[in-house]
Amino acid sequence: MTHNAIFNRIHQSFSRSGLLSVLGFQLVRAEKGICEVALPYSHKVANQQELFHGGVISTLSDTTAGYASLTVAPEGMEVATVEFKINFLSNHKGGELRSVGKVIKGGKRLMITSSEIFHVDDEGKSTLCAVAQQTMMAIPKNYS
Amino acid sequence: MTHNAIFNRIHQSFSRSGLLSVLGFQLVRAEKGICEVALPYSHKVANQQELFHGGVISTLSDTTAGYASLTVAPEGMEVATVEFKINFLSNHKGGELRSVGKVIKGGKRLMITSSEIFHVDDEGKSTLCAVAQQTMMAIPKNYS
Amino acid sequence: MTHNAIFNRIHQSFSRSGLLSVLGFQLVRAEKGICEVALPYSHKVANQQELFHGGVISTLSDTTAGYASLTVAPEGMEVATVEFKINFLSNHKGGELRSVGKVIKGGKRLMITSSEIFHVDDEGKSTLCAVAQQTMMAIPKNYS
Amino acid sequence: MTHNAIFNRIHQSFSRSGLLSVLGFQLVRAEKGICEVALPYSHKVANQQELFHGGVISTLSDTTAGYASLTVAPEGMEVATVEFKINFLSNHKGGELRSVGKVIKGGKRLMITSSEIFHVDDEGKSTLCAVAQQTMMAIPKNYS
Repeated sequence: MTHNAIFNRIHQSFSRSGLLSVLGFQLVRAEKGICEVALPYSHKVANQQELFHGGVISTLSDTTAGYASLTVAPEGMEVATVEFKINFLSNHKGGELRSVGKVIKGGKRLMITSSEIFHVDDEGKSTLCAVAQQTMMAIPKNYS
Repeated sequence: MTHNAIFNRIHQSFSRSGLLSVLGFQLVRAEKGICEVALPYSHKVANQQELFHGGVISTLSDTTAGYASLTVAPEGMEVATVEFKINFLSNHKGGELRSVGKVIKGGKRLMITSSEIFHVDDEGKSTLCAVAQQTMMAIPKNYS
Repeated sequence: MTHNAIFNRIHQSFSRSGLLSVLGFQLVRAEKGICEVALPYSHKVANQQELFHGGVISTLSDTTAGYASLTVAPEGMEVATVEFKINFLSNHKGGELRSVGKVIKGGKRLMITSSEIFHVDDEGKSTLCAVAQQTMMAIPKNYS
Repeated sequence: MTHNAIFNRIHQSFSRSGLLSVLGFQLVRAEKGICEVALPYSHKVANQQELFHGGVISTLSDTTAGYASLTVAPEGMEVATVEFKINFLSNHKGGELRSVGKVIKGGKRLMITSSEIFHVDDEGKSTLCAVAQQTMMAIPKNYS
């Protein structure tokens, strides 16, 4: 697939998810084996201490890993998460999060991926705030 | 603490989170070492296939494990997630999710917890749909 | 398969592993969806502090989960670990370890399992010392 | 600490472990935030299919991550594994394994680390065969 075809494939799936839309996820990049998503801070993604909620960071890490996998999955398939593990390194308020997901090992059915999640503050300073590792599985696509 | 005091402690923290409120999380139970949260299905918590989004299931698992830990954490402390791992067992549309978090081993600083997440369909049939394991850490509370 | 046929299937595979034999692993129980293995303390399984080495506890947890999966895997197949995660709860010297692996969700290809590892001291007192969660995969058997 | 002092600190701990000695682990490198260990193939580290046992790969990943942490831990302390997660990418017989552990984020008490484990065949061809992520904790040293 061309670069544009890959981006369009991911964007079509991405824009169908109610959750990603409600929370303000923005698809930044999707190329072979890589996907990047941005998320600006808002009250909607905050925890009780007014920091980015760990569940939101997890969702970002999972989303970018899943879509990195989808860039290499067979045509007509979607991708589901078998499992993932995430370590949180630091907590942040304000600014935005950037998650980059990568395929470590592709396969017809199972794909092993990782994500790095960075916080970028209002001055543009970037800090690694979480690292994650996932197992993804190709599944039939139920929409067209 | 009394049963009511524990519930109130958790509820105070729970109701401060923008994310949990936006997605429709409902605190069901909080007693010593245990926390249960419900989440009805809506477009807001759906993925591209119109199923509960894995990130939402993760957020549920993390929330109930964190609050199970908070029921046993020292007074005046909050709890942060060091890391977690989750396996997804089945996907669902409609009905609601129920997550039960439990403290496996408490400690002054680190707490090891687990969560089971069930899907309950409109006829009341319950299916285990995810299992997770977490490491929690007591941290200073930054609000009153 | 009969109870005996299941035990024999697991025992055949178990007794082929050089590692399990060298470290002193003992197959205690293998029935549908469950496997239990014991490991007495020795210098061979100790870390630098003379406690059971975390790698040995991991190997125990992985072994019992894998063989729990093998009890339900199709005839003529073996099982490989896709991934696992383990939390350590306490450290011990002397006595023995007991690990119990269980199938949480079986499938034709992927199986989700968990293990609980207990330390049993010389007086018979049992303490939960690690909990683990795994993803297993059926693969072709390369021996007969 | 000087480069040599770091290596000696790790080597002192490394050479005390019965397990590492029995299985043939070889300390290759220990510098600030990094540790590398080699393990030649033998029947002692094999599973039922005569491939490197997953428990051995886990032990390698855990060992290198733990010793990477110890290179940055306060003087007079040892390191214990709180938890880890590992994904297996490929299986191998013969040759040797090389694991490189790195500190992702250091801290006074908790350290987040990762490991990459490579298989090197008899022709020197290297293949990434497992990736792991760990949480480490500084603990008192019980020997001198």
